[in-house]
Amino acid sequence: MNQSQQTIVIIGGVAGGASAAARARRHSEKARIIIIEKGAYVSFANCGLPYHIGGEITERDDLLLQTPQSLEKLLRLEVLTNTEAIAIHRNQKSLEIKNLQSNEISTIGYDRLILAPGASPLRPPLPGIDDPRIHTLRTLGDMDRIKSYLKPDLRVLIIGAGFIGLEMAEQLAHQKAKVTLVEMQKQVLPQLDPEMAQHISEALREQKIELILGDGIASFADHENTLRCTLASGVTHDADLVILSIGVRPENQLAKNADLTLGKRGHIVVNTYQQTNDPHIYAVGDVCESYDPILGGVAAIPLGGPANRQGRTAADHIFLEETALPYAGSIGTAIVRVFSTVAGISGHSEARLRQLEIPYQTITVNGASHASYYPGAETITLKLLWHAENGRILGAQAVGKDGVDKRLDIIATAIKGRLTIDDLAHLELSYAPPFGSAKDIINIGGFAAGNVRDGMLKPVPDLASAGSQIIDVRPTASAEKSPVPGAKNIPLPQLRDRLHEIDPSQPVFTICQMGKTSYFAARILALNGFDAYSIQAGAHHQLKQLQDQS
Amino acid sequence: MNQSQQTIVIIGGVAGGASAAARARRHSEKARIIIIEKGAYVSFANCGLPYHIGGEITERDDLLLQTPQSLEKLLRLEVLTNTEAIAIHRNQKSLEIKNLQSNEISTIGYDRLILAPGASPLRPPLPGIDDPRIHTLRTLGDMDRIKSYLKPDLRVLIIGAGFIGLEMAEQLAHQKAKVTLVEMQKQVLPQLDPEMAQHISEALREQKIELILGDGIASFADHENTLRCTLASGVTHDADLVILSIGVRPENQLAKNADLTLGKRGHIVVNTYQQTNDPHIYAVGDVCESYDPILGGVAAIPLGGPANRQGRTAADHIFLEETALPYAGSIGTAIVRVFSTVAGISGHSEARLRQLEIPYQTITVNGASHASYYPGAETITLKLLWHAENGRILGAQAVGKDGVDKRLDIIATAIKGRLTIDDLAHLELSYAPPFGSAKDIINIGGFAAGNVRDGMLKPVPDLASAGSQIIDVRPTASAEKSPVPGAKNIPLPQLRDRLHEIDPSQPVFTICQMGKTSYFAARILALNGFDAYSIQAGAHHQLKQLQDQS
Repeated sequence: MNQSQQTIVIIGGVAGGASAAARARRHSEKARIIIIEKGAYVSFANCGLPYHIGGEITERDDLLLQTPQSLEKLLRLEVLTNTEAIAIHRNQKSLEIKNLQSNEISTIGYDRLILAPGASPLRPPLPGIDDPRIHTLRTLGDMDRIKSYLKPDLRVLIIGAGFIGLEMAEQLAHQKAKVTLVEMQKQVLPQLDPEMAQHISEALREQKIELILGDGIASFADHENTLRCTLASGVTHDADLVILSIGVRPENQLAKNADLTLGKRGHIVVNTYQQTNDPHIYAVGDVCESYDPILGGVAAIPLGGPANRQGRTAADHIFLEETALPYAGSIGTAIVRVFSTVAGISGHSEARLRQLEIPYQTITVNGASHASYYPGAETITLKLLWHAENGRILGAQAVGKDGVDKRLDIIATAIKGRLTIDDLAHLELSYAPPFGSAKDIINIGGFAAGNVRDGMLKPVPDLASAGSQIIDVRPTASAEKSPVPGAKNIPLPQLRDRLHEIDPSQPVFTICQMGKTSYFAARILALNGFDAYSIQAGAHHQLKQLQDQS
Repeated sequence: MNQSQQTIVIIGGVAGGASAAARARRHSEKARIIIIEKGAYVSFANCGLPYHIGGEITERDDLLLQTPQSLEKLLRLEVLTNTEAIAIHRNQKSLEIKNLQSNEISTIGYDRLILAPGASPLRPPLPGIDDPRIHTLRTLGDMDRIKSYLKPDLRVLIIGAGFIGLEMAEQLAHQKAKVTLVEMQKQVLPQLDPEMAQHISEALREQKIELILGDGIASFADHENTLRCTLASGVTHDADLVILSIGVRPENQLAKNADLTLGKRGHIVVNTYQQTNDPHIYAVGDVCESYDPILGGVAAIPLGGPANRQGRTAADHIFLEETALPYAGSIGTAIVRVFSTVAGISGHSEARLRQLEIPYQTITVNGASHASYYPGAETITLKLLWHAENGRILGAQAVGKDGVDKRLDIIATAIKGRLTIDDLAHLELSYAPPFGSAKDIINIGGFAAGNVRDGMLKPVPDLASAGSQIIDVRPTASAEKSPVPGAKNIPLPQLRDRLHEIDPSQPVFTICQMGKTSYFAARILALNGFDAYSIQAGAHHQLKQLQDQS
């Protein structure tokens, strides 16, 4: 077969499928490239759907990155929308497809097949689940339907506080809806560790979004023309609209029927060129498994970035074979904005490392988004996780109002380079007062991590983990304004002169406003012979956390 | 000697010196730590000085990060301000100092000496250079003096269009001064390659800042109560105030007199622990040389980030000896904002690589600061440079209105990890519509770089380098609005049907608006047998450049 003239059929015309098609055309003008798309649209901005509902993206057309016509003109693609692939005949290298408008069934042959059908939102078989007021958000049609409900004081119940649930909560609040968010975990954003996700809970509550944690949905029923939702706890909640955002499952039926190998959670298994166990068939995007380049093992990350780049990889492999650039695995970098608060992660969380039984250390630091003396600096909280044996960065989480994306991207790049905490300490990042600091929070995180490893800093994560002798080293006015229960206030500048007030036979735990001067204080104490520990993240955060737990 | 009780004397109490002192105190409560500072202030935000002149940092006190009193209280430092170190007696391990207020001379002994005197602005011995209206900006006193001139329509001549010259131009324009900027090079921001720096020239001109390139200052004289400045070209320019920002020289006199080894350009030579040839004496910050971790060789980067981290390194080495974390070298990451345009660099420029005779390749791409369908996306121009033999990133430059700092920091981290263009292609960066794109411009840069290496993209840098057969693939309306001289317009969607209009015996050069569809067009042509090249960076940029050169 002349590779340049082959027929490439792609199932799914959004992120991964569209990328594969475009890249394939760069390799060959003679290949026949066919996209089979079940929906009415191809190459739309699925990550933008919440923002059109919320009114930030005002023009619906802005979400249509390409149309079948533009793809024909620019890339000579044959795009069949409203067409479903119903069976793969691997022996014949053919695909049975069905026109969903005419119900006509036909067969097309392929030399290479790329599966990019994505994943569909979970819809658990609960009583009342078929009520038309219960929606998921995946397509432009879903978006249009949800948008048609908008009116002031619309009562919306969002089930699932992951990335999409949070984006929808924010956007529906922009549209003056009364939003309640239910999450089965005891925290929002379960991808992050609980103390980091807590910042997002605060942001939601500040905006009057009701948060129900540690509870799930049990059933739905109509009650006097509103939708009554009953939670697992028995609590009921009336809504005009329900958004289900509890996760997705890979669209694997076609692959399964064709005996392609699936992973434990139903994703199609592929090699680093995105090839399935049938070398003529590739899979890309949310439908497939990838691998974890940090610790090895399987990763399935349903996000747009990986999907797009996997599509490119598949196309490259079709034309370049083993000289193609393999897909590099997925580390799960993700970010969400909830009103003015931004939170995200790259790599593994503490919860995940514990589950994997990887020996790790962690530190959380607060720092400014740019030079603190220049207007507009905002606090960023950065949590670093590294391998206890070699200092290699395994993951990080960040929360703040500005510059969170930058720090996550630095960490994502550091993970790619297999950098250590010592490397972070000496990263030479861009610094001018509007953009950074002479010591960026990334450097500070590296410094603090090195101090933990070297025993110069003994951190405790929270007040609950601290012993009874707590020294609050904030200025007296701050300590009196928001007292730390059980703490004795010795402002840092007085500490050296008041060491005699501290019991050297007991461990001592220092706390301050931001988690920085408590370290300074703990160093003074340690060098004076005390068994001293610094409480992480500062009094503001710790007191909020106490409040949340009570 | 008991290390923990030694006397550490530090000359210079700003960035590097202050960092060294603070870090030393974390290692020992018993050490005596003395800072000798020639000026009246310690630990001030020298990078913030322009922004107080410009009124963005309204409170002068915000620039005083610490005072001698706060350093005494927090760190038990002995701070001698207005005190000059006048001689180092290495044999006695003592320092002669002079109180600049009382003129009293005294001697103090040291166990370890850290030199952090910084660098002083160059003041060439030109006729009239001592006129009191000619200022440099290094200290708070300089800042106060410059600020005292402010009035509407103040005529300011800034000599030198590097980072400080540009910041001063912007800030003085904020204060309604009439600013003229003179630069000896034929471009502003000589750290960047000319076509990238051109974006900053445009931003300056848009704000009515007069730009005189390729000319230097020759002399100054008073002329009817204004300062008449005569340039090398003979042009004269009248000003009320002159700012000299043509570079700095290391404050090396003390080191020189003490026979410490100096480098070619007068910087103190140190090892990776910042130790000079006298193991009891360290040097940090602008006064010392560092090394280039990218290509080896010497680097002397007078910036705040390196200074602070070198100070820390010196303090660590004093207490930890060879177990200290060595300084990692300087790659020269730098950024500047000029009105709404931001430009910066990390690693080596093309000019520098040419000088070093390193085989490299380069590509320039345009992309959006975040998802183009989400409001507020701005174009970023990213230039990547990589080693021609192994694809390793050697440097990058970026210009744009938003997100430039993030991309530079990703590159700085990539350089630290010795990443290649292929690694950039698969970086998994944070993506949600307000923050990034499914394919970030960093990924796109990696893709394009790979295409160049693999021969799929043959770029030419500008119109001047293109041959005579140029195809403008923009829509006809755009091509007619801003025509490319000598180009034939064939909109991309029509290209495949109009191949017969192109002469296959001649190379063909494609151009478009942003430098992206010209690549698509060149691929179509190449796959149809043409010798096709894509002109970089787009018609807007190329036409501006033509205009500039004419």
